[in-house]
Amino acid sequence: MFKLQAILSYKYIFNGCNILLYIVLTAKYALNLISLVVDIMEKTCTDALPLTMNSSEKQETICIFGTGDFGRSLGFKMIQCGYSVVFGSRNPQMSSLLPNGAEVLSYSEAAQNSDIIIVAIHREHYDFLTELAEVLNGKILVDVSNNLKINQYPESNAEYLAQLVPGTRVVKAFNTVSAWALQSGALDASRQVFACGNDSKAKQRVMDIVRTLGLTPLDQGSLVAAKEIENYPLQLFPMWRFPIYLSAVLCIFLFFYCVVREVIYPYVYKKKDETFRMAISIPNRVFPIAALTLLALVYLPGVIAAILQLYRGTKYRRFPDWLDHWMLCRKQLGLIALGFAFLHVLYTLVIPIRYYVRWKLRNITVTQIANKDNPLSTSSAWHSDSYLALGILGFFLFVLLGITSLPSVSNTVNWREFRFVQSKLGYLTLILCTAHTLAYGGKRFLSPSTLRWCLPSAYVLALIIPCTMLVIKFILIMPCIDKTLTRIRQGWERNSKISSALNGKTDI
Amino acid sequence: MFKLQAILSYKYIFNGCNILLYIVLTAKYALNLISLVVDIMEKTCTDALPLTMNSSEKQETICIFGTGDFGRSLGFKMIQCGYSVVFGSRNPQMSSLLPNGAEVLSYSEAAQNSDIIIVAIHREHYDFLTELAEVLNGKILVDVSNNLKINQYPESNAEYLAQLVPGTRVVKAFNTVSAWALQSGALDASRQVFACGNDSKAKQRVMDIVRTLGLTPLDQGSLVAAKEIENYPLQLFPMWRFPIYLSAVLCIFLFFYCVVREVIYPYVYKKKDETFRMAISIPNRVFPIAALTLLALVYLPGVIAAILQLYRGTKYRRFPDWLDHWMLCRKQLGLIALGFAFLHVLYTLVIPIRYYVRWKLRNITVTQIANKDNPLSTSSAWHSDSYLALGILGFFLFVLLGITSLPSVSNTVNWREFRFVQSKLGYLTLILCTAHTLAYGGKRFLSPSTLRWCLPSAYVLALIIPCTMLVIKFILIMPCIDKTLTRIRQGWERNSKISSALNGKTDI
Amino acid sequence: MFKLQAILSYKYIFNGCNILLYIVLTAKYALNLISLVVDIMEKTCTDALPLTMNSSEKQETICIFGTGDFGRSLGFKMIQCGYSVVFGSRNPQMSSLLPNGAEVLSYSEAAQNSDIIIVAIHREHYDFLTELAEVLNGKILVDVSNNLKINQYPESNAEYLAQLVPGTRVVKAFNTVSAWALQSGALDASRQVFACGNDSKAKQRVMDIVRTLGLTPLDQGSLVAAKEIENYPLQLFPMWRFPIYLSAVLCIFLFFYCVVREVIYPYVYKKKDETFRMAISIPNRVFPIAALTLLALVYLPGVIAAILQLYRGTKYRRFPDWLDHWMLCRKQLGLIALGFAFLHVLYTLVIPIRYYVRWKLRNITVTQIANKDNPLSTSSAWHSDSYLALGILGFFLFVLLGITSLPSVSNTVNWREFRFVQSKLGYLTLILCTAHTLAYGGKRFLSPSTLRWCLPSAYVLALIIPCTMLVIKFILIMPCIDKTLTRIRQGWERNSKISSALNGKTDI
Repeated sequence: MFKLQAILSYKYIFNGCNILLYIVLTAKYALNLISLVVDIMEKTCTDALPLTMNSSEKQETICIFGTGDFGRSLGFKMIQCGYSVVFGSRNPQMSSLLPNGAEVLSYSEAAQNSDIIIVAIHREHYDFLTELAEVLNGKILVDVSNNLKINQYPESNAEYLAQLVPGTRVVKAFNTVSAWALQSGALDASRQVFACGNDSKAKQRVMDIVRTLGLTPLDQGSLVAAKEIENYPLQLFPMWRFPIYLSAVLCIFLFFYCVVREVIYPYVYKKKDETFRMAISIPNRVFPIAALTLLALVYLPGVIAAILQLYRGTKYRRFPDWLDHWMLCRKQLGLIALGFAFLHVLYTLVIPIRYYVRWKLRNITVTQIANKDNPLSTSSAWHSDSYLALGILGFFLFVLLGITSLPSVSNTVNWREFRFVQSKLGYLTLILCTAHTLAYGGKRFLSPSTLRWCLPSAYVLALIIPCTMLVIKFILIMPCIDKTLTRIRQGWERNSKISSALNGKTDI
Repeated sequence: MFKLQAILSYKYIFNGCNILLYIVLTAKYALNLISLVVDIMEKTCTDALPLTMNSSEKQETICIFGTGDFGRSLGFKMIQCGYSVVFGSRNPQMSSLLPNGAEVLSYSEAAQNSDIIIVAIHREHYDFLTELAEVLNGKILVDVSNNLKINQYPESNAEYLAQLVPGTRVVKAFNTVSAWALQSGALDASRQVFACGNDSKAKQRVMDIVRTLGLTPLDQGSLVAAKEIENYPLQLFPMWRFPIYLSAVLCIFLFFYCVVREVIYPYVYKKKDETFRMAISIPNRVFPIAALTLLALVYLPGVIAAILQLYRGTKYRRFPDWLDHWMLCRKQLGLIALGFAFLHVLYTLVIPIRYYVRWKLRNITVTQIANKDNPLSTSSAWHSDSYLALGILGFFLFVLLGITSLPSVSNTVNWREFRFVQSKLGYLTLILCTAHTLAYGGKRFLSPSTLRWCLPSAYVLALIIPCTMLVIKFILIMPCIDKTLTRIRQGWERNSKISSALNGKTDI
Repeated sequence: MFKLQAILSYKYIFNGCNILLYIVLTAKYALNLISLVVDIMEKTCTDALPLTMNSSEKQETICIFGTGDFGRSLGFKMIQCGYSVVFGSRNPQMSSLLPNGAEVLSYSEAAQNSDIIIVAIHREHYDFLTELAEVLNGKILVDVSNNLKINQYPESNAEYLAQLVPGTRVVKAFNTVSAWALQSGALDASRQVFACGNDSKAKQRVMDIVRTLGLTPLDQGSLVAAKEIENYPLQLFPMWRFPIYLSAVLCIFLFFYCVVREVIYPYVYKKKDETFRMAISIPNRVFPIAALTLLALVYLPGVIAAILQLYRGTKYRRFPDWLDHWMLCRKQLGLIALGFAFLHVLYTLVIPIRYYVRWKLRNITVTQIANKDNPLSTSSAWHSDSYLALGILGFFLFVLLGITSLPSVSNTVNWREFRFVQSKLGYLTLILCTAHTLAYGGKRFLSPSTLRWCLPSAYVLALIIPCTMLVIKFILIMPCIDKTLTRIRQGWERNSKISSALNGKTDI
């Protein structure tokens, strides 16, 4: 059908390529294509394990209140995994699309069939449960509800439910999994199911169900945790927000800095239109600088912490909050830095393909023909090659760091190995990248000729934080200081009472 | 020994480099090398945790019928993890290579020692078990067998076993793990062990053993599931087959399309031999087109689904099968598209290294010397830079999408975050890549000059599906339509009875 | 504050850029920055689930001896997960920084509160526990200690503890998790907790606690395993050491080989200073050769194993240790090879940016102007394009192999799929890469003109092992040989007694 469609398309291009007709045709061909390939799919795209429906053993029965998407999907999954499911509905005869093998009853009837009742109903409609109080008495109510925004209500839905039907044992669970994922079996997003509840036996039973469904339950303690559990699925990369803000600010500042130096300046003085630099040349300055700065910011808190400990002469005092937070952001900062480095590499590698560059090189050649001789300057060769090599090695180690920070990889290494990679290799990366920038600068570094409106080349800014970092780090690893630091970290205190010193020494 | 070998090699190169002698020598040196490094290995390559054999506590005894590879490996692993193992064999004195610590008895004797019996025997030889009926009565038989091809027998091996020895409680398990992996401890492939059985207590006990061996059991319900479990290890990327077929067809078609335009056409008209284009130039057209088309096909089903829902005015009706299947293939389609994009990037970056390109550039320079002046055309600079920049950013986001689709990564994000990345970022990627193609085309887009035999440049084809997609999507997100769609997805139905509307509203 | 800082910096650059002042300023600005962004962080960087402290249910109480970092962190985590914790300390009133909700008592008092006691004390100070013998009698002691170096003591800490306080049930656990990870919740490194102990009930209870803390317990059998468990966190990539040594040796040898050919030789004969080649040109020869050789070494053991089996005529004999070890190193060898391949790609793609290359290309152009005509040689075009294409495809498959060897990916494929990717695709990669090298060599292969001091071009060395490999493999897959091999692998033995043949046939 591709051919057919292709032929059609040229015809229409000739008739003046009417784009609308295009869409119609393509839509039509798409549908043909689809209908034609369904049979292939039928053969090929079977779900990994389309599991059995009926089971001959005496099964546990679970009751689900509410026949909405989530209720149905959960029921479907449970039946797959060998439970028998009873739905409770306002009007059983009206409910549609229910998984086969499940029966639908009124709420009260359904409740009698099982001592585990999953409440798949929006919080706003919980109140009807009060009428069922005596039926529900002593049973396990599983609250699966989510809210539309974080901290929507004073108390969590689960706690509200517990107050509403006092006789029951409420457990919060399943709110982190999606209906579609349950039904399609494509559990790409989190398989983790956070569970909490005040009755540990009830919680255990629910967690067993979770396990049977092939999900991984995580006990989060008592029902007070419900609030956090309900907020969790509403979060959007909380740990990433600050690093992203920071890098955005950094990029914007650097971008304008470079625009001033490389677009406005030449325009003002030489009346040259160099706006096209904003597409590649300037981003290719901004990204590496941002990458190097962020990478340095990954290792800065460690250094600050060391200084603090030296200054305080003890490790037995908490770090300020901002430092703790910063430490928890390091991974994210590092990954964003890696992203920028990756972009820098791509932007650099396309250089020779750019029209502007080819044009420039041509001119150089042409001019060269005039003044015949042009010997190879070994120093220039060394210079260009060395900073390229440093850059490549730095990037390679950086990628390595990125890979080891993948959850599955970091899970397979022990703590010592993880520390080795993240600190030793990390510092090596930082050193290589800084060296790369220094080598790139070469002689031009801070030479007044490069100043425009007293602004130094952008890469000079890139060097500030990393160099500071490395200098301080270098001071810290000098034997004398390092010894004190190690002793402090082993529990020694400068002005200590015997006791805590002892504790520090004896305890792990 | 490297040096030695190196020296040898040159000698032989001189004597006319007799390749056979090479092989011999290399084999010899390889063996030297090996024997020499064994001692290093002894030190270094110890298995992560070569665990203890003997255990002082009262252990559970497990009986394994059959002393084949798998039986032995499983026994080995079990002894490692603190079980005591008894092998049952046709002729105990003959059995070899058994893990130390295990004893071998006749089937009936072995069976008496444990109430869990693992049947590590090919289905064809199950029949002898009938003789042991009374010994096996009430015991747990674990069927670990696999078949040679999918659906080889009418009923699954486990069910067959259950019929054969009625008194026993049969559990299907362990068929997904490999003997070699068990023994070497390198459980790279699936740690998942699917278990099913009609007696839930028996199943639980087997699943506990699985857990103790450091594997993750997945309950698949009753013995009816055995068939799927036995087919599972025989499957070869079922979900990938259709996407791969599709992309293969696409690539072949595009390849011939380009060959016609860029090899045959110039040959016919200009008698120029441009066959060498088939190595890089043409693939570098095919891959990006395939990538963009497949990426569009990832998001097409979502759009189609939306249209269907609008048309039907309800979400309470199943989608046609082909759409469901398509939706389940999206991830695979996307990853294949990423693969093509990756190839496109590499093929593009090597351009300046190609002999042909260097030759062309040289000629341009030479010709330019004739007509001296060649001013920089800012518009061309803008054009080349902008489409390169768009391409790079698009690829960067694409890689990001790929990374988040890694199981371990997608497991650490919640559903909202996953949706955000996969839909928002995904559409951004699609837009950037489409813009990249449009910018690449630039003015030439559909200009008759580019037509050869009425065939437009290949990249025009690349734009058909994505543009259609984006136009429809754009229409769908217009407020008026979007509002209706949202209401439908919240359970509202155009021509609904009160009830289901209510259900839709109240239930999750 | 960036601006402020920027402005400051130029001022100082002008005053002669006193770097020390720089550091001071940057430090100052860093602190401003930090204090300014804390409030953003407060909003954004909240820990994923900062969980509840108090829990209304009747909780299990756990006693922790020692108030060091690890003791405190573990206590903190346990309180989070709904346990109540009692610390035992030498001098309770002195202990600081304890998580709120925990009480501190003397050792003996604390011990009375719980029957699970976690001993978070260095082995050197265990002896005081003897005094508490009668209090501890019958209780579960959890040994969480680690040593400073592998096999520091004759017996493991856990066994030593068991001897010290005979009446107790000692379980080894938690030594693989880090204090910081427990407290920060950033459990990046291993979540696995190896547990062992002679009393299975005690072990079970500890493993349940581990599970409740959101970690994954792995039963390692009896207390004899404690030694390995205590050594585990002290290991540093044991499986990687040999592959890394090997590749280091390989690289160093190749590097000097190339230096001799490409730096010393021209210097001696043409007095040309080509030292700058050591930065990029030579590494870009070393890396691909190392990559190809290592890749071949990944598949060599498989071939050797096959030959051994053919030679012995049976599979029922163990392989020599070095072969087993080698087989377990294959993954690491392959990944290192991929690393080199990645570096080779980057080094190749920067070629056109290098000063030296641009200089050479300019000269070629200049010289060409003299002798006007320079027709396109199709063969050269084919040659350069084909080896580039082969290289790209080879690298692409190589990356694919790398991705599938990620733990999380290889966990989602079944054994057959894993084998397919790792063997079929692996061999295809090897073939493509070898072809790439052969095509690169082209006509020059072994032509005496390329010999310098009788040394052939480096890439010739790269071909030795892969070609040998492929030739042998090719012989092995010839029908006649392949059939025998298959039969052997199915359990057939050349000179076999009926019995074991039968076993081989019947058993899995």
